[in-house]
Amino acid sequence: MNVGVLFSGGKDSSLAALLLEPLADVTLLTATFGVTHDHEHAAAAGRALGFPVEALELDAAVAEAAVEQLVADGFPRNGIQQVHEHALERAPTGTPEGSDSFDAIADGTRRDDRVPTVSRSLAQSLEDRHGIHHLAPLAGFGRGAIDHLVEANFTVESGPSEALPTGDYEGELRTLLLESHGVETVEDIFPPHEQSRVTGRL
Amino acid sequence: MNVGVLFSGGKDSSLAALLLEPLADVTLLTATFGVTHDHEHAAAAGRALGFPVEALELDAAVAEAAVEQLVADGFPRNGIQQVHEHALERAPTGTPEGSDSFDAIADGTRRDDRVPTVSRSLAQSLEDRHGIHHLAPLAGFGRGAIDHLVEANFTVESGPSEALPTGDYEGELRTLLLESHGVETVEDIFPPHEQSRVTGRL
Repeated sequence: MNVGVLFSGGKDSSLAALLLEPLADVTLLTATFGVTHDHEHAAAAGRALGFPVEALELDAAVAEAAVEQLVADGFPRNGIQQVHEHALERAPTGTPEGSDSFDAIADGTRRDDRVPTVSRSLAQSLEDRHGIHHLAPLAGFGRGAIDHLVEANFTVESGPSEALPTGDYEGELRTLLLESHGVETVEDIFPPHEQSRVTGRL
Repeated sequence: MNVGVLFSGGKDSSLAALLLEPLADVTLLTATFGVTHDHEHAAAAGRALGFPVEALELDAAVAEAAVEQLVADGFPRNGIQQVHEHALERAPTGTPEGSDSFDAIADGTRRDDRVPTVSRSLAQSLEDRHGIHHLAPLAGFGRGAIDHLVEANFTVESGPSEALPTGDYEGELRTLLLESHGVETVEDIFPPHEQSRVTGRL
C-alpha cells in the first residue's frame, strides 16, 4: 500500500508515519501555499527520519479565505480546519511527482485533537470521491500515549512558536496575517506557545 | 511501552497487534468467562503470529448479565458492548501472569465499528482510573483499508460462525444462551454469518 502522509515535521505526523512504516510504503507530503519556505524545515525533518518527501502545493485562494476566517473568528480553529480539509482533497493528486498513485492518504490527527479533526463522514467522503483510503493512525491514541511513544522514538527540539519554523499551516497563515493585519492581530489569534520539531530517530 | 492487546484471533485484533509491534512490547490477552475453550483457538492464532499470549479471566456474572441483555434486546449490540467494557476494566490487572505491569491496553475497535466501540470519554476514564493508556490503533482505519492490510499481511481461514470457533465474546455468549434459552433464541440473536480467523503471517 502506497501511503502519502501529510507531514509538518511535528511529533504527531512523525509518529503517524512511524506507525505506518512496517505496513506501507510511506511518502511524506509537506503542504505549502508558497508563502514561506517553512515547509523546507518539514522536508528536512522527514529526510532525517529516512522517508521520501514530496511537496504538496496548496491553493493560495484557500489561504486567503482561511485568513479571513481567522480574523472574523478571532481564533484559529475554523481557519486551520479549512486548510487541513483542502490539503486532504489535494493530496491524492496534488504533488508534481504524481502522487495520484497513492492508495491512501494519512494524517496525524489524534483522539484528543480539537483541530484539525477528520470526522468519520469526512473520511468516508474522501474515500468515496477519490477512490483512496483515509488513515488516521493516531485517532485512537491520547496525548499521554503519544508523548510516551515520541520520547521513546524521536529526538525533538522545542522553542517558541515564532522562532521555530515548522511545516504546519500556522506558519504561512501567520505570515499572510502579518502582511494584511499587522502584528497585534497575529498575536491575538496565535498567542505565542511552545512548538516542537522532530530532528531524528533514537 | 508494555501493551496488552485484547485478542480474539480475528483480523482486527491481529492487525492492531501488528501496528503496535514496532513501537511496543505486545502481549496478546485472550478473554474468557471459562464457559468454553474457544479462547484456546485465539491463543493458538496469537502464537502463530509470534506474540506472547496470556488468558484474561472475565467475571461470570458479567456474562449472565450480558445474556439477559441479549434476550431483552433481541440483538447483540448492547450485550457485546457490556462484555467489552468489562474486559477493558479487567485487562490492566486481570491475568494470572500479572499484567498489572502494562503501560497500555489496546483493542481492535475500528473507525466504522458499530460494536464494540470505545468513546473518547470511556478511553479517558479508563486511563484516569487505571493509570494506563488506552490505544485503539484501528480507530482511524476504515473497512477497506483494513481488508487491504489484512490481505497483505496475514493468512486467514473463513467459515460459518457456528463452525469456526474464535476467541471473540460471541462464542461463549452463544453457548450460555443455548443452555438457557435454546437454539431458536441463539439463531434469532446471532444469525449465522461468515467468520474468519487469522492463521499466520505472510
